[in-house]
Amino acid sequence: MAPSVGVIMGSSSDWETMQHCSRTLEMLMVPHETQVVSAHRTPGLLFEYASGAEARGLRVIIAGAGGAAHLPGMAAAMTLLPVIGVPVRSKALSGMDSLLSIAQMPAGVPVGTMAIGRAGAVNAALLAAAILAPQHPEIREALAEYRRRQTHAVLDNPVPGDPQ
Amino acid sequence: MAPSVGVIMGSSSDWETMQHCSRTLEMLMVPHETQVVSAHRTPGLLFEYASGAEARGLRVIIAGAGGAAHLPGMAAAMTLLPVIGVPVRSKALSGMDSLLSIAQMPAGVPVGTMAIGRAGAVNAALLAAAILAPQHPEIREALAEYRRRQTHAVLDNPVPGDPQ
Amino acid sequence: MAPSVGVIMGSSSDWETMQHCSRTLEMLMVPHETQVVSAHRTPGLLFEYASGAEARGLRVIIAGAGGAAHLPGMAAAMTLLPVIGVPVRSKALSGMDSLLSIAQMPAGVPVGTMAIGRAGAVNAALLAAAILAPQHPEIREALAEYRRRQTHAVLDNPVPGDPQ
Amino acid sequence: MAPSVGVIMGSSSDWETMQHCSRTLEMLMVPHETQVVSAHRTPGLLFEYASGAEARGLRVIIAGAGGAAHLPGMAAAMTLLPVIGVPVRSKALSGMDSLLSIAQMPAGVPVGTMAIGRAGAVNAALLAAAILAPQHPEIREALAEYRRRQTHAVLDNPVPGDPQ
Amino acid sequence: MAPSVGVIMGSSSDWETMQHCSRTLEMLMVPHETQVVSAHRTPGLLFEYASGAEARGLRVIIAGAGGAAHLPGMAAAMTLLPVIGVPVRSKALSGMDSLLSIAQMPAGVPVGTMAIGRAGAVNAALLAAAILAPQHPEIREALAEYRRRQTHAVLDNPVPGDPQ
Amino acid sequence: MAPSVGVIMGSSSDWETMQHCSRTLEMLMVPHETQVVSAHRTPGLLFEYASGAEARGLRVIIAGAGGAAHLPGMAAAMTLLPVIGVPVRSKALSGMDSLLSIAQMPAGVPVGTMAIGRAGAVNAALLAAAILAPQHPEIREALAEYRRRQTHAVLDNPVPGDPQ
Amino acid sequence: MAPSVGVIMGSSSDWETMQHCSRTLEMLMVPHETQVVSAHRTPGLLFEYASGAEARGLRVIIAGAGGAAHLPGMAAAMTLLPVIGVPVRSKALSGMDSLLSIAQMPAGVPVGTMAIGRAGAVNAALLAAAILAPQHPEIREALAEYRRRQTHAVLDNPVPGDPQ
Amino acid sequence: MAPSVGVIMGSSSDWETMQHCSRTLEMLMVPHETQVVSAHRTPGLLFEYASGAEARGLRVIIAGAGGAAHLPGMAAAMTLLPVIGVPVRSKALSGMDSLLSIAQMPAGVPVGTMAIGRAGAVNAALLAAAILAPQHPEIREALAEYRRRQTHAVLDNPVPGDPQ
Repeated sequence: MAPSVGVIMGSSSDWETMQHCSRTLEMLMVPHETQVVSAHRTPGLLFEYASGAEARGLRVIIAGAGGAAHLPGMAAAMTLLPVIGVPVRSKALSGMDSLLSIAQMPAGVPVGTMAIGRAGAVNAALLAAAILAPQHPEIREALAEYRRRQTHAVLDNPVPGDPQ
Repeated sequence: MAPSVGVIMGSSSDWETMQHCSRTLEMLMVPHETQVVSAHRTPGLLFEYASGAEARGLRVIIAGAGGAAHLPGMAAAMTLLPVIGVPVRSKALSGMDSLLSIAQMPAGVPVGTMAIGRAGAVNAALLAAAILAPQHPEIREALAEYRRRQTHAVLDNPVPGDPQ
Repeated sequence: MAPSVGVIMGSSSDWETMQHCSRTLEMLMVPHETQVVSAHRTPGLLFEYASGAEARGLRVIIAGAGGAAHLPGMAAAMTLLPVIGVPVRSKALSGMDSLLSIAQMPAGVPVGTMAIGRAGAVNAALLAAAILAPQHPEIREALAEYRRRQTHAVLDNPVPGDPQ
Repeated sequence: MAPSVGVIMGSSSDWETMQHCSRTLEMLMVPHETQVVSAHRTPGLLFEYASGAEARGLRVIIAGAGGAAHLPGMAAAMTLLPVIGVPVRSKALSGMDSLLSIAQMPAGVPVGTMAIGRAGAVNAALLAAAILAPQHPEIREALAEYRRRQTHAVLDNPVPGDPQ
Repeated sequence: MAPSVGVIMGSSSDWETMQHCSRTLEMLMVPHETQVVSAHRTPGLLFEYASGAEARGLRVIIAGAGGAAHLPGMAAAMTLLPVIGVPVRSKALSGMDSLLSIAQMPAGVPVGTMAIGRAGAVNAALLAAAILAPQHPEIREALAEYRRRQTHAVLDNPVPGDPQ
Repeated sequence: MAPSVGVIMGSSSDWETMQHCSRTLEMLMVPHETQVVSAHRTPGLLFEYASGAEARGLRVIIAGAGGAAHLPGMAAAMTLLPVIGVPVRSKALSGMDSLLSIAQMPAGVPVGTMAIGRAGAVNAALLAAAILAPQHPEIREALAEYRRRQTHAVLDNPVPGDPQ
Repeated sequence: MAPSVGVIMGSSSDWETMQHCSRTLEMLMVPHETQVVSAHRTPGLLFEYASGAEARGLRVIIAGAGGAAHLPGMAAAMTLLPVIGVPVRSKALSGMDSLLSIAQMPAGVPVGTMAIGRAGAVNAALLAAAILAPQHPEIREALAEYRRRQTHAVLDNPVPGDPQ
Repeated sequence: MAPSVGVIMGSSSDWETMQHCSRTLEMLMVPHETQVVSAHRTPGLLFEYASGAEARGLRVIIAGAGGAAHLPGMAAAMTLLPVIGVPVRSKALSGMDSLLSIAQMPAGVPVGTMAIGRAGAVNAALLAAAILAPQHPEIREALAEYRRRQTHAVLDNPVPGDPQ
């Protein structure tokens, strides 16, 4: 099935974080593709990827990057598709630089920013699924089921007792 | 026309920021509604608003809040719709608290976080429009036109010269 | 004996921190209950828990959460009881996000915020005991004894010498 | 009527913030006293005030201070009463220093920390009232009424319209 | 004379800051051009500008931008020329976001980052002049003179006396 | 009388802050001199000033600087005298950069860092006086009197009342 | 020999940091004493220690503490002696809370703040020695020797070569 | 061959970071020298090194330092050569102090600041090479090759797949 979501990341080392996005999309039955596209090392590829994404049938772009994380914002600059940014945790500043580089976009070019790291990667998948849900009843149902399961996981949780 | 986007904010003082969201939605021909819904002062109303939004026909919720900004995350907790959060600039910490309270959501409940303040409010409207665009050719066209206009505004900009 | 203090936490992983709260309450002879209640994954349970707490006989709610920590503030929004918030140390931002999400509440809905992590969990128990002390002489005495013991632990501390 | 709450502040310049605490206590019918007590300039007075507070009949101490804000923590070190700290907004660092100096107390001596500035001052009064409410039905009722009024203020709020 | 330095900025509002760069280049006799090039609103123009800069005879690019400041890094991604980045002071976060977005570049694509705001704009000109100095004795001399003058401005400074 | 304290500052614009240091030294009867010495614009002067200070009879150096504030640390590198650093409030980052640039000295070269801004300038004078006090009874007495006066200023402070 | 410097710390766990202060004082031949004095757990002891320090013959107090680090400032409030503060690295916030709690003292009560952690502990000893040096030629000489040794350690350092 | 680039660092422990600079310069065929020069422990050596660098034939100085990192700025104060600063990651504050101490230079003395840590060390070498490239075709070619290789490393990167 043709992918609806393109998951890109600035470096192959970001896969450790972004795999959680990919897996969550799978759980939600969202067809997607994954690719390393670096804003800084392959600007031409980014240009091509982002500006051609809509025509290729993508409906959402998820971009993960760390440090001076320019990938999500630059992708958003070259497409009308919704772009979701995942701040990957950076070494020195723990992702605070990634978060600000992604979230603080100027008026005119939006990026929906997620939490730093793994939680953000999972949530990017959930937000993409929510965007696709109205036209894809099976995704909507998978999303509803995902939320039900996590609610039950809390409700069924035995009251924590002192393990000692 | 029935609203597709619900714009809520935690306090009427947030309107100064969120009006830029409302105006941008208007420019993009996106039917929407605006309402003050406080997570802390009217939790019952929030519960009702968020859990009933999808059934009422809303497709996207945009929530603006400042400080310990719980509105976007709590709305997201009670709906499957995409939720976009706008961190309103807070007095003491200039919106850094708002940004972290909105962006750092745990895995399972996504909020697409925008920039702090006015830019974020404008971009929330643009992202909502991008989400709606595939089913609404007129919104897609308005969005494309908005982007063209802002590109031309830069290109037509005379090179700044030294005013002295 | 019916619990006077309800200790809730956003996730079972918060137990590592919040167990120190529970143990301190035990040392102080404060009857209490512990439960996982997630603002984001079980908003309905939170609604029910917080709005019914006073009628069930609770006198204080202690809520621990990390990241975009909405649990303490949302609990406070739905009860007149004193709510004490414990910022759990988050992975990327070491609890700075948790601290701001809990402390920076708007006027109208108070949360008494503690230090990030274990120290905050212990102190939440001590503050709850201090709140209950006037009506419970045995708690007041346990609290006084706890403070005396920690004072003596310092006073009896031999002057540190160079271990080499 | 003898005061139940002692409101202290590190400098007379903190009154601009702390007056909102005093006014809210009045609205809630909580008898209280206000005094400038500086941890650094009058440590002896602080010693005396805090260690004698319980015997004088106080039930809660509210302490506001800015910068290296030691007043709340040092008051807490010398009493078993619940101490609520209000971080006053400091000039250079906007109260981030005040917040950390008050919130990051070590295990053993709790301070219930509020938001920076005016919101924190108001909420300190509300938390003190919540602590006193069980023994003072008139305070509990005033508190309930305060919360109802603020809920209605939101609900009655006309949907903000574009002022242009 | 053909410009050796290209001064670009993300928005015409950045001119308030970047004019100090332009003026300092004039004082140092460095031929230069100035242009608004937005990474987000005109990515095509940026692509063209940066990738053609060396062939057009530019020797250094100075790029000023604020918030999620992607302009310097993206320019650097598309040229081998030295790129100097000036973090423009942003509204909410005072340029801390600009600084991190520019400075925290990944290995492989360097940007020489300056101080936030006006000082950074002046220094960008000085650094560009220092880069050009070896091949341009008149620039080297102008630079040496600039430094001498500022040293004398301090040395000739009368000892500050109490103005009262 | 020969000055015992040398008050230097990186720029004449720092005088607005450092004059409070000079005035406090006067109140404390500490003979002192004031001079603009820029680490960056007059490194030779700094070298000479700091390395000759002890021989000229100075007993303490107070250095105020903002931003990348290198003056106190570089002075300390070139003298055995105690050096006190005053972080001047910087424009963009409100003195947080000044504070870290002064306080975070490596092991081997100490700088006694004060608070950001005016409070720090006053306290630098008080610390210098405390250092000189054992050999100068009149300074010790002036210091004791200064502290007594500020204690009385608090004690005599009428309890703030509600101005309405 | 009677101690000239009193080294106090808020908890015995601070010894790991403060032992570097004690060892450096030994190397500099400065007679000193070390003791755990907690501002929060033993305020009475702190009162007694600080207010009696000058009479007991101490010339300088060095106080190390972490988190809401009130020990240095409270010691300074109760003595005219110079007080040097060492921010101990805290768990969650790496000592940023300790640094601000110590450095941001209000005008009137100075604390000479050092760097966070071990470097700060070493430098506190060096600053204390510098304060004592004029009356103690052997300390001045030890200090000069210490500085010479560290200068030579750098000068004799072989140029680092690539270890591969 | 005579070195064109002088790589200095504040301490031999900075070599762990700065070796990546040295290696990258080697890959780019840039003749260079490396030396420990401490602003604080060997200010005389720094003075000599920086003020004599141009005459000795150096074209660029790269300076790495951590904490209160004064080395790059002080080197820049004593030479007209371009100075590139590398903020070494510090222990407590992860290099945020190093970054601000290097980047926030006042107008008049520029330092081209790189990212914190290893990425910054690599990029300092790349920027130095870019500065030298116009007069050294072999460096320009090595630089172009370096960039081509890193682009291909991304392009040839197989799409990451789920490793499970």
